[in-house]
Amino acid sequence: MLNEIRKDYLLDRWVIIASERAKRPTDFLTKTSEKIETKTENCPFCPGNEKMTPPAFLLYLPNNGGIRREKDQNGERRKDWLVRCIPNLYPALTSRSPVALSSNEPLRRMDGVGTHEVIVESPRHDGHPDRAPLRQVELVVQAYLDRLKSLSKWKYVSIFRNHRKEAGASLSHAHSQIIAAPMIPKKISDELIAAKTKSQKMGVCPYCKIIELEQHGPRHIYENESFTALAPWASVYPFEFWLFPKKHQQTLLQLQDDEKKDLAKALRACLGGLAKILNDPPYCYGFHIAPTKEKTEYFHWHLEVYPKLTIHAGFEISTGMFINVAPPEMIAENLRNSIS
Amino acid sequence: MLNEIRKDYLLDRWVIIASERAKRPTDFLTKTSEKIETKTENCPFCPGNEKMTPPAFLLYLPNNGGIRREKDQNGERRKDWLVRCIPNLYPALTSRSPVALSSNEPLRRMDGVGTHEVIVESPRHDGHPDRAPLRQVELVVQAYLDRLKSLSKWKYVSIFRNHRKEAGASLSHAHSQIIAAPMIPKKISDELIAAKTKSQKMGVCPYCKIIELEQHGPRHIYENESFTALAPWASVYPFEFWLFPKKHQQTLLQLQDDEKKDLAKALRACLGGLAKILNDPPYCYGFHIAPTKEKTEYFHWHLEVYPKLTIHAGFEISTGMFINVAPPEMIAENLRNSIS
Repeated sequence: MLNEIRKDYLLDRWVIIASERAKRPTDFLTKTSEKIETKTENCPFCPGNEKMTPPAFLLYLPNNGGIRREKDQNGERRKDWLVRCIPNLYPALTSRSPVALSSNEPLRRMDGVGTHEVIVESPRHDGHPDRAPLRQVELVVQAYLDRLKSLSKWKYVSIFRNHRKEAGASLSHAHSQIIAAPMIPKKISDELIAAKTKSQKMGVCPYCKIIELEQHGPRHIYENESFTALAPWASVYPFEFWLFPKKHQQTLLQLQDDEKKDLAKALRACLGGLAKILNDPPYCYGFHIAPTKEKTEYFHWHLEVYPKLTIHAGFEISTGMFINVAPPEMIAENLRNSIS
Repeated sequence: MLNEIRKDYLLDRWVIIASERAKRPTDFLTKTSEKIETKTENCPFCPGNEKMTPPAFLLYLPNNGGIRREKDQNGERRKDWLVRCIPNLYPALTSRSPVALSSNEPLRRMDGVGTHEVIVESPRHDGHPDRAPLRQVELVVQAYLDRLKSLSKWKYVSIFRNHRKEAGASLSHAHSQIIAAPMIPKKISDELIAAKTKSQKMGVCPYCKIIELEQHGPRHIYENESFTALAPWASVYPFEFWLFPKKHQQTLLQLQDDEKKDLAKALRACLGGLAKILNDPPYCYGFHIAPTKEKTEYFHWHLEVYPKLTIHAGFEISTGMFINVAPPEMIAENLRNSIS
């Protein structure tokens, strides 16, 4: 099969799908150098070491079969939590200063205001979503929603997860991060603009059309009642996949209770399939949601998962074009089989 | 110092400059795990092993103190070369098929046509530009120009270099790569559009203004008669620097003989400074040039060098915003001192 150059569904992003030099899924196994620890000494996220972090501003505690929300008080740290939300000790953005946009062209700047939080997803060091009990993953989804709601005064809230050192995780204990920023980031605004333009032209949400198109095709990976997963047409990363709510929704905040459960189920299944097939590879994920304060009924939120198995180098960085040695159709087939 | 968020001179690209969590230059030393080999057995780019690659379509040979251009003929491989231009054995793009743009929205595609070449920069395995004799680096610059000229029928020609495994180099022998593509890549077209808009508004090339502004400021690194190097205001990577011709030029093809020498000198000095300060770190570079076939007098070509010392993860990939833990002013000061 000849190589081909594919363009993203919506964005002006070209990817060379290198079928001729395509690697088999098992070729990516070798890239995973180290096994992840099930426990480390002095892990600041493990129960008993809570003093190593700032106090939690939100804790999820067991409560007669249900859940209770609390926070650390009076300098004390609770130890009986299920999920723990804390400030990042080395925040990229902080909320203490006022926003000042300098007009000194071409040296444009703003103060680094925003927030940077950590969600410790489980008391278990290796309580990652591919292997944690479903109930625990549901709680993490609930924490995403609660924090997103609390941070809605910010222009954009990025919820993301880095798994393993090769994917940027400085600590191996299961955790996600949230950065609230004073502007809408470039990639999100590109998607918002493209979605708006397309939806005006087509009279329908372009993502809804993509979901419909891919639903029974060669790039389809997984579905449950509320969610569907696919390997995108112009995947940038080998084993990349995207998770969409089937219903047209702009943000996580619109999720109903049963849909939250289905999101947790989908996360667990797809990340489980990935872990199984590649022996727990490094990956990142990031939610793409509509900004809470903007009227963006044309947007369709989704989660993008980027396994980190190859290196973007001089060509990719200097041109913004990509070379992907794993055709998404092959990846989807393998992930489908790994999940079922 | 508070963190700040900076915007690129021209692009809609935001970078969080994390001064608060800033690392010292020496903190990046530890990231360089392995020393690069001075020789490897069975290196396909080392003299004597030419049979391991396709025939060279362009060779630079010594010729009475000057240079002679040749190519491998009749299945033979010459062994007395100084620089060797060969097809990439695993090309991302090939020139055998006709370009067909599918209109099957949203699954847009083209055949993977183009070229993918390798420039073996030196018979010496470790003849990297930071340590090679100046004469050798000049020859590499000449090869860039010759190939660029030959490939001018393509929409865009990307000349790039990956140094060390961590920066995507699959072979450690000194080499660059060239990919000629049937479209103008996104990042280049973004720069072209921004440069056009700005130059129309300002009545002058925006890059010329940047060079003037930065020439004696805290981000200036190096200059010679024809070139200037700076750590860009909104650097994405720690130790990132850009090299500009002082004269307003759109492409490498406009370089005069003395300017070619000055480019080689600048490359050698700046990459030498980087290697010295960080103990030969992994890096990539890529030329940003105007497309040969387009009238783009508003563009100003330059070289961008990206050291690979940190990992872009969930936040960066999903938002297109970046966190840089090394303020460019600190980096420029260190590189300046390392070069002088």
